Amino acid sequence: LAEPLAGAAFIAFDWGTTNRRAYILSAGGEVLHTERDELGVLSMGDRSYPEELDAHRARFGPLPVVAAGMVGSTRGWREAPYVSAPADIADLAASRLVIEEASAVIVPGVALSGARSDVMRGEEVQVLGAVDAGLAPRDALVCQPGTHNKWVRLEQGRIVDFATAMTGELFALLRANGIFAGMLDGPVADGAAFQDGMARGIGAVDLSTALFQARAEVVLKRRPCIEAAAFVSGILIGADVGSRGLGRGEVVHILANGQLAELYSAAVTACGARAIEVDSHQAFVAGIHRFWEMLN
Amino acid sequence: LAEPLAGAAFIAFDWGTTNRRAYILSAGGEVLHTERDELGVLSMGDRSYPEELDAHRARFGPLPVVAAGMVGSTRGWREAPYVSAPADIADLAASRLVIEEASAVIVPGVALSGARSDVMRGEEVQVLGAVDAGLAPRDALVCQPGTHNKWVRLEQGRIVDFATAMTGELFALLRANGIFAGMLDGPVADGAAFQDGMARGIGAVDLSTALFQARAEVVLKRRPCIEAAAFVSGILIGADVGSRGLGRGEVVHILANGQLAELYSAAVTACGARAIEVDSHQAFVAGIHRFWEMLN
Repeated sequence: LAEPLAGAAFIAFDWGTTNRRAYILSAGGEVLHTERDELGVLSMGDRSYPEELDAHRARFGPLPVVAAGMVGSTRGWREAPYVSAPADIADLAASRLVIEEASAVIVPGVALSGARSDVMRGEEVQVLGAVDAGLAPRDALVCQPGTHNKWVRLEQGRIVDFATAMTGELFALLRANGIFAGMLDGPVADGAAFQDGMARGIGAVDLSTALFQARAEVVLKRRPCIEAAAFVSGILIGADVGSRGLGRGEVVHILANGQLAELYSAAVTACGARAIEVDSHQAFVAGIHRFWEMLN
Repeated sequence: LAEPLAGAAFIAFDWGTTNRRAYILSAGGEVLHTERDELGVLSMGDRSYPEELDAHRARFGPLPVVAAGMVGSTRGWREAPYVSAPADIADLAASRLVIEEASAVIVPGVALSGARSDVMRGEEVQVLGAVDAGLAPRDALVCQPGTHNKWVRLEQGRIVDFATAMTGELFALLRANGIFAGMLDGPVADGAAFQDGMARGIGAVDLSTALFQARAEVVLKRRPCIEAAAFVSGILIGADVGSRGLGRGEVVHILANGQLAELYSAAVTACGARAIEVDSHQAFVAGIHRFWEMLN
């Protein structure tokens, strides 16, 4: 066994469908070490979750584990419950799934139980952590871009409503398969092609027609193939952001990093609202630390 | 060589991306024999198109071939041109691609060359054939459900405008991959789940959110998994049909067969318009026969 990391109190996992990120945190919430890999729940295959935890403990010390995300789904390790919105971190802590024999706790997901159905797993830690750390106000609209983008409405620091847009998944499906295969490998950034796509996507009731237009433009040599990915991304993100009924000047807190934060900020701006970017890793750490504090 | 089929004048292929259908036609346009297989252009691999033609000639006689569809694309045998709309069968015949050494002719596609870009290959024969055979009027709105559904506006018997919705492809991508994998294998028919989906999809500006809702309903056990495919199909077809701005009582001619015809008819009806189903095989035969007559 390696020397335990000095000051380490627990290991937190943001363990999603395709990636996982591990954080070694102090009792005060300081990040002592962090690392990311591709071992999301769909890549686990026959691997054992307890053994994965032990592999981390062998490196960082015999620490308790707190895990959030799809690890707590039927496709993950064990199924954690869903807490019904409205929900805050105390509600999550109260419904935690404890796995005694592995010294692990899994954070519940959040579900809508009204007329509309929706679910989240993992995003609740980020969004509530952002509020807890003062990165977003207690009344806010938060956007969490990704494979399944979440739009979360916070009131008095609680998640009261949310909607999922599978924008990232649609882009990935189109890029890898079917008529667009090989056509969406160009760069995606906030340039002219992305702006063209947004103009087409915002408010569109005919999304699947807008998408085909991208192919037709390339086939007819009206748009270089290298621009197609940015154009399609613009259509999808434009349609996503454009359907939220954002008010003029309304503030959207975007929990993301890198390119996705840039693209969604551009779309929020194009819709007349105002984007404030929040570091999603920092938000997760704040949320999982507060959750852990509530267990102790 | 087999005995040539008595009265056969030519072999027509409706040769698409995933399927092909062959028709042995008389000079008068009578169907003497027809067959369908999965040897679409994406399944051809290293096979030779001329040898495929010869294999048919060995069975039916040394007949000329007329082929329409993706066989005339960059992913098919040889690239036939696109004719710009407005277009009729005479325009197609004038721009045909002749492959002398194989005694074959490929029908051109049709493109929009105005502000909006769109392309079709194969559907033009069906839709113009439907008009030629009196199955649809010379001024009509025609819907051609499939992987890439075409909405075609006819004026005075010519294709003047059209739009493609990749409704069928989106459904296939969702069913085979990602978060819906294994969840969309139930039956799709015009029942309660399909109607629920249509109600959600018609007029929706948030298609990718509507789709995720289907997953959330299953995860939260508010909808049996067996209904998910019909619900998702209803969302996609509802969004497609609902975005066409159909007038109350407006007639839509649906060129399709079987289940797709039924589902699109239901959606047209749900949007307050009137659906008239037209046999798409009959329409293709009428169109390809007229095309062939113009070559002779």
